[in-house]
Amino acid sequence: MNKFPVLHNTLLLDTLESKKTPRPPVWMMRQAGRYLPEYMELSKKYSFFERVKTPELACEITLQPIDIIGTDAAILFSDILVILECLGIEVQLKPGLGPYIPFPIRSSKDMNKIKIHPAKESLDYVYKALSLTRQELNGRVPLIGFAGGPWTLFCYLVEGQGSKTFSLAKQFIFSDPKSAHHVLQILTNQTIEYFHEQVKAGAQVLQIFESWAAALGPDDFMTHAYPFLKQIVNEDYGVPMILFAKDAEWCYPDFQDEGVKGFGISWGCTPENARFLAGNKTVQGNYDPSKLMSTPDIITKEVTEMIERFGTHRFIANLGHGILPNVPVDNARAFVEAIKNYQSPS
Amino acid sequence: MNKFPVLHNTLLLDTLESKKTPRPPVWMMRQAGRYLPEYMELSKKYSFFERVKTPELACEITLQPIDIIGTDAAILFSDILVILECLGIEVQLKPGLGPYIPFPIRSSKDMNKIKIHPAKESLDYVYKALSLTRQELNGRVPLIGFAGGPWTLFCYLVEGQGSKTFSLAKQFIFSDPKSAHHVLQILTNQTIEYFHEQVKAGAQVLQIFESWAAALGPDDFMTHAYPFLKQIVNEDYGVPMILFAKDAEWCYPDFQDEGVKGFGISWGCTPENARFLAGNKTVQGNYDPSKLMSTPDIITKEVTEMIERFGTHRFIANLGHGILPNVPVDNARAFVEAIKNYQSPS
Repeated sequence: MNKFPVLHNTLLLDTLESKKTPRPPVWMMRQAGRYLPEYMELSKKYSFFERVKTPELACEITLQPIDIIGTDAAILFSDILVILECLGIEVQLKPGLGPYIPFPIRSSKDMNKIKIHPAKESLDYVYKALSLTRQELNGRVPLIGFAGGPWTLFCYLVEGQGSKTFSLAKQFIFSDPKSAHHVLQILTNQTIEYFHEQVKAGAQVLQIFESWAAALGPDDFMTHAYPFLKQIVNEDYGVPMILFAKDAEWCYPDFQDEGVKGFGISWGCTPENARFLAGNKTVQGNYDPSKLMSTPDIITKEVTEMIERFGTHRFIANLGHGILPNVPVDNARAFVEAIKNYQSPS
Repeated sequence: MNKFPVLHNTLLLDTLESKKTPRPPVWMMRQAGRYLPEYMELSKKYSFFERVKTPELACEITLQPIDIIGTDAAILFSDILVILECLGIEVQLKPGLGPYIPFPIRSSKDMNKIKIHPAKESLDYVYKALSLTRQELNGRVPLIGFAGGPWTLFCYLVEGQGSKTFSLAKQFIFSDPKSAHHVLQILTNQTIEYFHEQVKAGAQVLQIFESWAAALGPDDFMTHAYPFLKQIVNEDYGVPMILFAKDAEWCYPDFQDEGVKGFGISWGCTPENARFLAGNKTVQGNYDPSKLMSTPDIITKEVTEMIERFGTHRFIANLGHGILPNVPVDNARAFVEAIKNYQSPS
């Protein structure tokens, strides 16, 4: 086990443990990203996968938003698709298209392309990046590790790229659920191992992104996604887990008694409804990322209203999805500052 | 006023008037479309806008699913963006990209590009296509006219094309709501006139597609979309109106007392929740279009379960979104047949 510096800013961990804090913690999904000029500089010099797979670069990028806009947590710069390497599946990046899998798994006939490699060995660069970042953070804020949810990974694995409808992935799962569940179980096993290794390497919080949850309706989600997510969140990693099932907040009541400490909320869900669906667990969200395109004044006003509606207890201020590339840095900073400066009206 | 043949199949109209029927009516969004080989034949000979703007072609395409798969309603083959012609805005079709607006309205500075033309004159080809189709249907099934919701039209008008995030449209509406609402009011006025003219020309039911409703959160929807939709649905056209606010079923309680007879439901909403949100109005939906990629046997079984969960009263069987281009015609027919053959367990 690594020895790491003592954590000073415990707002995020305290909030996930339902402890009262002086104010909510704040971070932003994709906070290490294209809206930062410092990030764009590195992206000119190194390809996406060079940035992801070089621990020093991933560390530098992960630290950028901590230094520049002052969030209360760091989230490792990485990609949910790197885990497909543990299935022997090659992922490329196509300019303008995003991640691309040259040999996708379209049906049971393709399943022999899957060659399982232990997540412990295949993703060594992730663990090195986590350990290095945890050291470099020097206890300033906690470090979040993450993975994609099995259904979301399955979508990419089948489609080979992003999709509006995920109709190929859905065709597979609806017409041959047995084979599809076999693949989902492999992804689940690898994710559990991956999360354990991330924690050993320094992750202090874990977030699971089931980004395409809403491509399935509620009943199909319970059949094809929930059983696998449940295995992942109920494993004991020794650190708290946040589940983000984007636009599928209707599933959260089914996770209230499972091993989840926090629920990510999209802007399509009101704070009041989020509280209802999350029960007495912590909620994280849900400012509309497009609203960061307005002005610092509007952002400050709206963020204050958001905190008042969610309440300061068991609330992690975040966006409802990733920050957009064209957001001015001053606006991102205004978002963070509005939360840091929040004064309870009482 | 045109004289049209007497309507024989009154299932859809009766259901929208909350009358009891022997079985639910069935139609499918985008039922006149690319999954039909007969449609593909015409699309080889004529461009998309030739098909839309030539009444004889639009009529022929509209009738295809009635003849081939036997739905209980026809919906005019057209496009929600044609109404932008009434604002003097050119819409092109870019292969592989879809509709494309060369001179979009990005901010108040662009608003002088809007030149209002009466919907009555600009869209004559739509009315001619409706009248011709209504005659050709010869009373077999009712004819549905449609338009896009103001917010959805605004999204295209600002972005100039489809978008994952509609961040430009949202930037406009969040940073300059006054100008944005001015544009939305123009779209609203034109849509009301357009619907009146559609009914005069032969439309027997109207559906409004607020396809991008869920890009706005519930509160922003109430501020920026609801006031305009409300004006449209509360106008008396003399025919029933169906509202489809895709993935934003949370807004339906606010429309329960407005001039809406039916609510379109996506597959992200359970039948039970749809009933709760729609009150005592009719619901329409919500089979996952991807499920039409399975087999006729699976489709028949699932459609039967769907009817049982929605109930046969005040229910229009439909998909939760448009039919996908790669659906086998036999599967589409199995969907329709499953509803026609439905026998109540009682």
